[in-house]
Amino acid sequence: MLSFENDYNIGCHPKILERLNEANFQTLSGYGSDIYCENAKEKIKKVCNCPTADVYFLVGGTQTNQVVIDSMLNQYEGVISAKTGHINVHEAGAIEFTGHKVLEVPTKDGKIIIDELEKYLETFYNDGNRQHMVYPGMVYISQPTEYGTLYSKSELEGLSKICTNYNIPLYIDGARLGYAIESKENDATISDITKLCDAFYFGGTKVGALCGEAVVFTKNNTPKHFITIVKQHGALLAKGRLLGIQFDTLFKENLYFEISKNAIKTAERLKEILRKKGYRFYMETPTNQQFIILENNKMEKLKEKVVFSFWEKYDEDHTVVRFATSWATKMEDVEKLNEVL
Amino acid sequence: MLSFENDYNIGCHPKILERLNEANFQTLSGYGSDIYCENAKEKIKKVCNCPTADVYFLVGGTQTNQVVIDSMLNQYEGVISAKTGHINVHEAGAIEFTGHKVLEVPTKDGKIIIDELEKYLETFYNDGNRQHMVYPGMVYISQPTEYGTLYSKSELEGLSKICTNYNIPLYIDGARLGYAIESKENDATISDITKLCDAFYFGGTKVGALCGEAVVFTKNNTPKHFITIVKQHGALLAKGRLLGIQFDTLFKENLYFEISKNAIKTAERLKEILRKKGYRFYMETPTNQQFIILENNKMEKLKEKVVFSFWEKYDEDHTVVRFATSWATKMEDVEKLNEVL
Amino acid sequence: MLSFENDYNIGCHPKILERLNEANFQTLSGYGSDIYCENAKEKIKKVCNCPTADVYFLVGGTQTNQVVIDSMLNQYEGVISAKTGHINVHEAGAIEFTGHKVLEVPTKDGKIIIDELEKYLETFYNDGNRQHMVYPGMVYISQPTEYGTLYSKSELEGLSKICTNYNIPLYIDGARLGYAIESKENDATISDITKLCDAFYFGGTKVGALCGEAVVFTKNNTPKHFITIVKQHGALLAKGRLLGIQFDTLFKENLYFEISKNAIKTAERLKEILRKKGYRFYMETPTNQQFIILENNKMEKLKEKVVFSFWEKYDEDHTVVRFATSWATKMEDVEKLNEVL
Amino acid sequence: MLSFENDYNIGCHPKILERLNEANFQTLSGYGSDIYCENAKEKIKKVCNCPTADVYFLVGGTQTNQVVIDSMLNQYEGVISAKTGHINVHEAGAIEFTGHKVLEVPTKDGKIIIDELEKYLETFYNDGNRQHMVYPGMVYISQPTEYGTLYSKSELEGLSKICTNYNIPLYIDGARLGYAIESKENDATISDITKLCDAFYFGGTKVGALCGEAVVFTKNNTPKHFITIVKQHGALLAKGRLLGIQFDTLFKENLYFEISKNAIKTAERLKEILRKKGYRFYMETPTNQQFIILENNKMEKLKEKVVFSFWEKYDEDHTVVRFATSWATKMEDVEKLNEVL
Repeated sequence: MLSFENDYNIGCHPKILERLNEANFQTLSGYGSDIYCENAKEKIKKVCNCPTADVYFLVGGTQTNQVVIDSMLNQYEGVISAKTGHINVHEAGAIEFTGHKVLEVPTKDGKIIIDELEKYLETFYNDGNRQHMVYPGMVYISQPTEYGTLYSKSELEGLSKICTNYNIPLYIDGARLGYAIESKENDATISDITKLCDAFYFGGTKVGALCGEAVVFTKNNTPKHFITIVKQHGALLAKGRLLGIQFDTLFKENLYFEISKNAIKTAERLKEILRKKGYRFYMETPTNQQFIILENNKMEKLKEKVVFSFWEKYDEDHTVVRFATSWATKMEDVEKLNEVL
Repeated sequence: MLSFENDYNIGCHPKILERLNEANFQTLSGYGSDIYCENAKEKIKKVCNCPTADVYFLVGGTQTNQVVIDSMLNQYEGVISAKTGHINVHEAGAIEFTGHKVLEVPTKDGKIIIDELEKYLETFYNDGNRQHMVYPGMVYISQPTEYGTLYSKSELEGLSKICTNYNIPLYIDGARLGYAIESKENDATISDITKLCDAFYFGGTKVGALCGEAVVFTKNNTPKHFITIVKQHGALLAKGRLLGIQFDTLFKENLYFEISKNAIKTAERLKEILRKKGYRFYMETPTNQQFIILENNKMEKLKEKVVFSFWEKYDEDHTVVRFATSWATKMEDVEKLNEVL
Repeated sequence: MLSFENDYNIGCHPKILERLNEANFQTLSGYGSDIYCENAKEKIKKVCNCPTADVYFLVGGTQTNQVVIDSMLNQYEGVISAKTGHINVHEAGAIEFTGHKVLEVPTKDGKIIIDELEKYLETFYNDGNRQHMVYPGMVYISQPTEYGTLYSKSELEGLSKICTNYNIPLYIDGARLGYAIESKENDATISDITKLCDAFYFGGTKVGALCGEAVVFTKNNTPKHFITIVKQHGALLAKGRLLGIQFDTLFKENLYFEISKNAIKTAERLKEILRKKGYRFYMETPTNQQFIILENNKMEKLKEKVVFSFWEKYDEDHTVVRFATSWATKMEDVEKLNEVL
Repeated sequence: MLSFENDYNIGCHPKILERLNEANFQTLSGYGSDIYCENAKEKIKKVCNCPTADVYFLVGGTQTNQVVIDSMLNQYEGVISAKTGHINVHEAGAIEFTGHKVLEVPTKDGKIIIDELEKYLETFYNDGNRQHMVYPGMVYISQPTEYGTLYSKSELEGLSKICTNYNIPLYIDGARLGYAIESKENDATISDITKLCDAFYFGGTKVGALCGEAVVFTKNNTPKHFITIVKQHGALLAKGRLLGIQFDTLFKENLYFEISKNAIKTAERLKEILRKKGYRFYMETPTNQQFIILENNKMEKLKEKVVFSFWEKYDEDHTVVRFATSWATKMEDVEKLNEVL
């Protein structure tokens, strides 16, 4: 069976296992205070071109969103998200669990419509009843989005400007950030992102790691007693080395970005194949997730040889499905798919 | 100044003060265990035509929604609401504060679109990713809605049937329930409502009381240790008499419904006047709230003589405003408004 | 039956009902923005001798503790309390419900032992593991305590100094504050209290009101968007007049303190009677609650003619019971009790 | 430097890395649904001698306690713990974060005093005010305790009986469960534990794994939609293989218990050495943690050659310190310590 089911169905980059092995019997202190964490943080700050950034390692994406959003919001605030944002749909209410509302704004292709965001904030601050409403306290976006689309640099600048005007932080979920950066359509560098937002994370789980996300607070704005807050959320890993070594490896010699290229390259070829074969795209996406519309009976047939994801019903006879590539996808599997199709 | 600003700007029905006075030096036990609470509960059960109903008194509407929803939901569940539902807009995130997501469904004229509700639930239970999503655990509606509109009996039956099919409770916010019942367009009696939903409340604050809402659990389904849950939410009133006496008065000799008629009668006359004068209605509403679209300069002029509520911007030159009547509105004030207009 | 069961079993001071009546048909704006609330706030600020104080009205004691503590704490902080503190025992977990731990310190006669508080804080800040612990973020005391005892002015100064040293607020639960102030043993004035703590409340429910507590933030330190936080907790009363009129009445011409004197006077006489009759006191208390140790069979007999509260089992044959007086207790009832005993 | 600082300062058992390596490029489904998780669950159920047990894998100890306790409690309930229990001291309020109070009962040597537990529950259910109190909804213990002590089988039976009588679950934190089982003083087998409690976990982090704890629900009592609750708490690991492979390795051929023996063997030798050298023990403990009382200047000297943990101040001149061994401690390091001492 060929698998294009998702981007977390393979282990990790082999160098990570190598280094976990090398360090295995080293005595290291816990909770992220070891030398590997320190080294990884330094490397990440360099990549961000931001010596004053503050870096923390957490285990998973939903956990990271929960801890970062809850720790940055005031208690009377909610977080603005695209209707299709991960925190609004696929985190089982992890944000609301911490007492905060997710405030939906109109969305197109997985992205917040910037004018609508501005309108939302303007309307809120003109509303005489706003004392009875949840204050918008942060803007959450994902780059790339859950639909594989990208915000351009100028769009990020637009979002950033609005956030600055309203004095609320911009937070970027970078679960697949490597795939955004290496996309051919991307024009926002890590350095740009660091400047334009208040916090973001480099996703490890979907980009070469077994687990782990690296949160960057970019503006000397780490919430006070952040480690205690992490612990309170049940999110503090005892053997911090597991995260430190992974990120130290991924950010050594640009590995994180190098391996991200493979996801893009294989996705581009996949797109080409699908296009040539006349498949209908649900959305144009420049990263590692491709959404196509299949006739139901054709879908059933394809399922016999290929694993992909159900996305949503399109109409009675058609279904939207997702093909995902990753750092680990083999080009030969894409070519095999070509034959199968 | 004439005031049509809202339906809670006058004290309470004079009989309530009379009876508070009479009972003032009676020694009564606390926390809702007094004789007035008992009597009020009996009267309400009779009005509901439901001897097995369970009645509790709380202080305000948001508090009631928070306590009832939080106590009826499982922790992995959220509550479905119209986009414009009070819990979704004007409760400052009181539901999310208790850890539960408010799940928006498409809405028309303040009401959940019933087909969309069904589609929402069907889609949810067909979604292979639903383990990662908030489970819909209740349907919340208000009768009348925040826009003064009404669900017909057949619509309530439709909602009830869907809830039964998906085994989730239907909860009705009755902050203005008296005004729904006495509306000329209403065809759902209290008895119908009691049968069709799992919990609802008779709003006192907006219908003759100084404060207080009477929650009815209709199906022998009071959450276990409900009093302790109420206390945990900071919502248990020590001198329960304040609520017991009010509801015992309001439900004696049909007073609650009798005084509700005045709100409808004055609203009907108001509507007639507005229509005659050629005002444009934002929405057709058969209860005590009337929404009209005013030219901004006309609005400013009117403000000099009448108090009403800003509702929302309509366009650059127009604004939607609300005129509200209540149990206490004097017909002569409506006639004075006629002259002013 | 004579009743000394508690201090909230009678309605309210008659002047309150009078004034509710007078204002009943006045059109007033909602949510605490009416003229009565404004006037009451001014009067309270004068009583506190603190023009920069900020005053808010809430409905009940547990609610007030919940809202004030949750809004003043950071998310990684808990609140220090006597083991016997109301928030630690009789609020059904209302503080934990908002995510904060109640941190017990050793207690004597209902009061925090001041040296133990200092030791607790010192130990915490010397603990190398404190990142994994709940930070002490506030000291909560009640004046008088749940056992009717009082902190002296010098004890309050001691607590205040410790709080200042550790930069955490001191919050005083004044559910029965009037009875503390009028106690013969009291040497801390309202003005002292205002200076020594960061927030406190004047309890209305147990001192002449039907409901209501008046929170005072004393140091220009009201939590940002406090009204929204109140709403989020389900604690914002629509008809704020109900609270405004009550406190405006209680703080007019010193009424709050005048009526408090009655509780003390009747309690003093009660104490004298009990002492003369040879009853054994469980604790020496200078306010309106008296705790005595009764033989069980004597207790059962007494129950036939007098209502009092079970407090706790003393040993196999004895029980601790509470007699409470209040602003409304009649001296003739105390004398009748004298005869019964 | 010799290190006896804690039991999580070494990586993992080498076989785990071997198997992570072998499986690295296998395509596996996510979120714990892979074959390794399945196999590990089967092995654990066999070890428990309980085919109907339900097993789940989580990442860390605090997270596990948070998720299990929150999902098993009703909202009006708290969890009973020893004063020194991990959830009460070193989890930064992770339990209160989910809205539940930790209810302290008197404690000796890290263990709940069983008679005091019974008294606590009896007193609670005899308290006429219990509606205003947090209901005790679970008993939490750790085996071994945070002080390295053990509950005997008969003590566990005592606790279990009380829990059964009061119809509340008994939950055992087994962060170091392997070290309890292999202790010479232990007489409660895994099979006993499975029968006597309602839920427990095998700690991986401190017993051979890089991370991970295996929760066992023993009585067909897994909370409904548990996976969704795990996700809601930010605790669901995408690449479940990381946990599945670790536990499949640890529970293959008894590895978990075999490696636990080393911690006990080295701790026993350590104890012997300390005793011979005349060190004063703070507590008698039969597992892998040893607590001794050192003169402060001696402690400072020792620190130059050995890493151990500060535990608490004993008096002005003495300190309690902890020496911990683990599955990875080398006997030669214990002998080196012998020389150093």
